[in-house]
Amino acid sequence: MKFTIAKDELLKGLLSAGHAVGTASANPTLSSFKLEMTGKGLEITSSNGDISIWTLIPEYRGENQIIRNSSLGSVLINARIVTEVAKRLSGNEVTIEIIDNAIAKIDDGKSSFKLNCMDADEYPDIDFDKNGSSFVVACDALSKLTAQTAFAASDKNRPVLGAVNFKAEAGNLTATATDSARLSRKTISVEPNLRFSANIPAKTLSDIVKMFDNVEEVEISASREKIVFSFGTTIVTSRLISEDYPVSSSIVPQVFNYYLEINSQQLLNAIDRVSILSSDKASVVKLSMTADNVEISSSSDQNGSGIEKLTTIQFTGDRLDIAFNASFVSQAVKALGCEDVTFSFVGEMRPFVIKNPEDDSVVELITPMRMR
Amino acid sequence: MKFTIAKDELLKGLLSAGHAVGTASANPTLSSFKLEMTGKGLEITSSNGDISIWTLIPEYRGENQIIRNSSLGSVLINARIVTEVAKRLSGNEVTIEIIDNAIAKIDDGKSSFKLNCMDADEYPDIDFDKNGSSFVVACDALSKLTAQTAFAASDKNRPVLGAVNFKAEAGNLTATATDSARLSRKTISVEPNLRFSANIPAKTLSDIVKMFDNVEEVEISASREKIVFSFGTTIVTSRLISEDYPVSSSIVPQVFNYYLEINSQQLLNAIDRVSILSSDKASVVKLSMTADNVEISSSSDQNGSGIEKLTTIQFTGDRLDIAFNASFVSQAVKALGCEDVTFSFVGEMRPFVIKNPEDDSVVELITPMRMR
Repeated sequence: MKFTIAKDELLKGLLSAGHAVGTASANPTLSSFKLEMTGKGLEITSSNGDISIWTLIPEYRGENQIIRNSSLGSVLINARIVTEVAKRLSGNEVTIEIIDNAIAKIDDGKSSFKLNCMDADEYPDIDFDKNGSSFVVACDALSKLTAQTAFAASDKNRPVLGAVNFKAEAGNLTATATDSARLSRKTISVEPNLRFSANIPAKTLSDIVKMFDNVEEVEISASREKIVFSFGTTIVTSRLISEDYPVSSSIVPQVFNYYLEINSQQLLNAIDRVSILSSDKASVVKLSMTADNVEISSSSDQNGSGIEKLTTIQFTGDRLDIAFNASFVSQAVKALGCEDVTFSFVGEMRPFVIKNPEDDSVVELITPMRMR
Repeated sequence: MKFTIAKDELLKGLLSAGHAVGTASANPTLSSFKLEMTGKGLEITSSNGDISIWTLIPEYRGENQIIRNSSLGSVLINARIVTEVAKRLSGNEVTIEIIDNAIAKIDDGKSSFKLNCMDADEYPDIDFDKNGSSFVVACDALSKLTAQTAFAASDKNRPVLGAVNFKAEAGNLTATATDSARLSRKTISVEPNLRFSANIPAKTLSDIVKMFDNVEEVEISASREKIVFSFGTTIVTSRLISEDYPVSSSIVPQVFNYYLEINSQQLLNAIDRVSILSSDKASVVKLSMTADNVEISSSSDQNGSGIEKLTTIQFTGDRLDIAFNASFVSQAVKALGCEDVTFSFVGEMRPFVIKNPEDDSVVELITPMRMR
């Protein structure tokens, strides 16, 4: 195998594939990229066991020739080293030549590297075939959905809760993530006939949306055990967590006794200030609401107390005091990403809901904490 | 004690004093600032046992009133918490009032904090008095001297090598730092009668130069056990390492057999590239020089090898191959901060010198490594 390739294109391909590189300790071949020059162009394959990536750098992109003087072949090459080399080379083009299936000579006319390689046959077979239900979604929509839900997943208590559940039925795709103390849910429209449920590891989703670069749409194919994302000249496949997702749609309360509408940024700043005092990692903040006064406060035996009156608010209901994990509420408000947010409360010790008053598609549900 | 103070001035004072805050585990009072309202203004004292800081926020800076409505008094307040509060407050002015010597009420008209305090009498007495030899140096000169020497200090093998040695005699102040594998030395002019030697912990020096803010000159008073730096309205005192500094001025060779002059940036880039291959933390790089060819290379059994030809160079001497710790040479070249650097070599296994060809005041000496 030998080829000359535009360096920036090579680096982009290596960085994309770099989202799924295993550690050498688990399986030495998985700390390598498989590079394969075929009739299509340079194919790069990577895998960390959970998620696998195939990406193609085509010979031409439009009129621009990206790869020239190529001869077919394949090799395994240390992912970290080849990426670092490509990052630091100063030339615009780089020539890669495999010698005796053991050495990759990388040369940009100024620097010359001879990297140790392995035979491509040692790489595991990876199945990138689609199966199960397929649908197409805009990359922007999947990125936003991920940003609004994945942060609430945590596999600390149960592996399945480390996933975001995608459930399609009746023309809706609902993504749900929870660590059992809070829940984030977002619904988008899909084809009416689509029907499946899949638990996608939150890290997989976050990695994939980082790889979207100049692509409009992604095709998703989900079966019970695996999911395949195809976009541009890249395919990503991930294992799924094949367990029933333990959260039903009825967990979100529908009837409330108190409503608070408040400016998001003012609330975030106030939470940031009063939560300084907490000596724990999970700082507890209290919201005290009456019709004409809303205050946010926090106290710690060790450090003291802080209180702040919130303005530009509207509160409906009787007096209510409620305490919560400051960073859960901050993350939820940031995920909504809107100017004002509404809080809907049932009562002091019942989960409450935070929403964008102008967008019903996202629900952030948070369990209160016991008041000190 | 009660006063109203411009918030930015308060924060600046707290951040300055924050360079010397102890951990609560070592001594609870040292994790506090001592705040003292006196006739001069607000005095803030901090100490971590090794280095102690006194800084004054005056009542007026020129025509600007910084502190108003003040009543005298003093208190100890948790350094981290009060700094975090001051950082996050949104108002321009903040009022601090000590209640019952136990609570500091901090209020900017919007947020209100009540922080637990301790009695100022519990704070240790700290001696900020000057003694020993005193001299004045420009802050810029001390900052540059620190940046060019302190990185080479390391207390890993011997405590005294964690210090930068300042030695004044015959109108010169020479700063020397070494970790025993490399040495950095810088000389500046001082008053001809000044004569002392002091081992200043490298971290003390780095902390102090970070505190220079709109000040021109610093007065330094050094005795054998302690050193005092006075600048603006701040005094910093640090313990010294009262041991003879084990490096004589004759350690730097004076007669060389090989000279290399090279562009600094080109050398740094080439070292950065070829040192990728090293799997160790200390990557070894080899320089191979003849009259018409200078190459830099590196190799690792595990990863392979890399080589690069250097241009825009001038080499005088016979053929020479020399290997060195890549980051030692990179740090030295960066510390010199000049367009071209000269390397002067005695021989393959003898320490070599890197200099700015246009400035004799800085010497960077590096011991080579054994060639693989």
